[in-house]
Amino acid sequence: MASSHPLVPFLDTLSAAAAKAILPHFRGGLDVENKLASGFDPVTIADKAAETAMRAEINKTYPGHGILGEEHGSENLDAEHVWVLDPIDGTRAFISGLPTWGVLIGLKTNGKPDIGMMGQPYIGEAFVGDCKSAWYEGPIGSRPLKTRSCDSIENAILLTTAPEMFKGAEADAYNAIEAQTRLVRYSTDCYGYAMIAAGQVDCVIETGLQAYDIVALIPVIEGAGGVITNWTGGPATDGGQVVASGDPRLHEKLLAKLASGAV
Amino acid sequence: MASSHPLVPFLDTLSAAAAKAILPHFRGGLDVENKLASGFDPVTIADKAAETAMRAEINKTYPGHGILGEEHGSENLDAEHVWVLDPIDGTRAFISGLPTWGVLIGLKTNGKPDIGMMGQPYIGEAFVGDCKSAWYEGPIGSRPLKTRSCDSIENAILLTTAPEMFKGAEADAYNAIEAQTRLVRYSTDCYGYAMIAAGQVDCVIETGLQAYDIVALIPVIEGAGGVITNWTGGPATDGGQVVASGDPRLHEKLLAKLASGAV
Repeated sequence: MASSHPLVPFLDTLSAAAAKAILPHFRGGLDVENKLASGFDPVTIADKAAETAMRAEINKTYPGHGILGEEHGSENLDAEHVWVLDPIDGTRAFISGLPTWGVLIGLKTNGKPDIGMMGQPYIGEAFVGDCKSAWYEGPIGSRPLKTRSCDSIENAILLTTAPEMFKGAEADAYNAIEAQTRLVRYSTDCYGYAMIAAGQVDCVIETGLQAYDIVALIPVIEGAGGVITNWTGGPATDGGQVVASGDPRLHEKLLAKLASGAV
Repeated sequence: MASSHPLVPFLDTLSAAAAKAILPHFRGGLDVENKLASGFDPVTIADKAAETAMRAEINKTYPGHGILGEEHGSENLDAEHVWVLDPIDGTRAFISGLPTWGVLIGLKTNGKPDIGMMGQPYIGEAFVGDCKSAWYEGPIGSRPLKTRSCDSIENAILLTTAPEMFKGAEADAYNAIEAQTRLVRYSTDCYGYAMIAAGQVDCVIETGLQAYDIVALIPVIEGAGGVITNWTGGPATDGGQVVASGDPRLHEKLLAKLASGAV
């Protein structure tokens, strides 16, 4: 698909490097290490290898660019262009063999999300955006991504990764919305945002996100006609509490209900 | 992969017919009709078209065989061979654009599950079994399916489609298990059983299943070395409360805890 942004082709370079590092490990009997002693936050060999591979491509081709990655930290964050990488978003899905994880590759330019991609190399599909447009490439061809109309919570399909991540007032706010929706599905990670862009679902509500979980998805959602913010309507760029909607009218209604749980 | 069962190649015929009927409708902007006025149980054009296509293949090639299908009812159920069809298991995933739905094609011979397949035509993968062996074909090649060892609930990854499906005593029994597990993922439908067979996860616990939700999966789970029963340890063939495990030792522990919720 067409994008006038000069760095869009480089998304494919990075995504191919990540896929090559990851795929030999998917459903291959992984060694999983616990990142946090207190919980279950698996990081795989694939995750680290993919970030290493993407960083090598960036350092080789654009040595002046900055990098913020999940696995290997930050470098040169004051640069005009900063790549934001999450090599495997959805590690729990990945270790369970489910195909709903993705490779997140975002670019911030002068501090703002600029272009981004969610790639699913096992399926062979990618959801890409440049804030002004968004497009899909995969098993059913190439097509533009366009969110769908949905102006009420009652008609909405809602996705979220794990309802237990909401605590206290934010759980109350989330649960009140979930109870009103037409349908909810869990465990969706980055795939949920891609489905908003594809016009298949209407909203995603999450909390506790990191910048690398969300920066790549903002140009896809916005490019497809959707809205993505934090729970107070500000930029979602830094993660935290995030809400994304395909229809701006739905987004306003969600923000009104999320306000009581916003921090 | 090798199977001496003469009807295994016919699974591919049926699955190809289903895929051809379904794929034009996946992520294509479906008209969804509500099957039950009281709830949200979508049936798509694709679902019905796929079952019609599979029935036509069976009637043409094996006119003496019986058929039990989700969409178009039963015929000739007293036959030696009865095909059990669920053209799209996971319709909620399907309408949400998620790739975790599947085409379920099972064969009962003299009343017992004999061969079965879970096909995912969007990804291009299939999980197949004949009770004695099981195998995978898909984007990462062909390989045998083998469950993994896991002898305790504390080490187990548990999948289920929707925790809200459990009510009363069965919810108490389920929740006590979920709280003990290492990791749980929701919204998995038939894909969860395939991941047991693939040795990626350890167990699936569900309730309210129909025969067509489960018959196709029994030869896959058993062929990969797993166990699948109802909550009292009897045959899972008729659906209802179902538990599947990759390791028979884990299965015994799950059954002991599920007994208080078994009906």
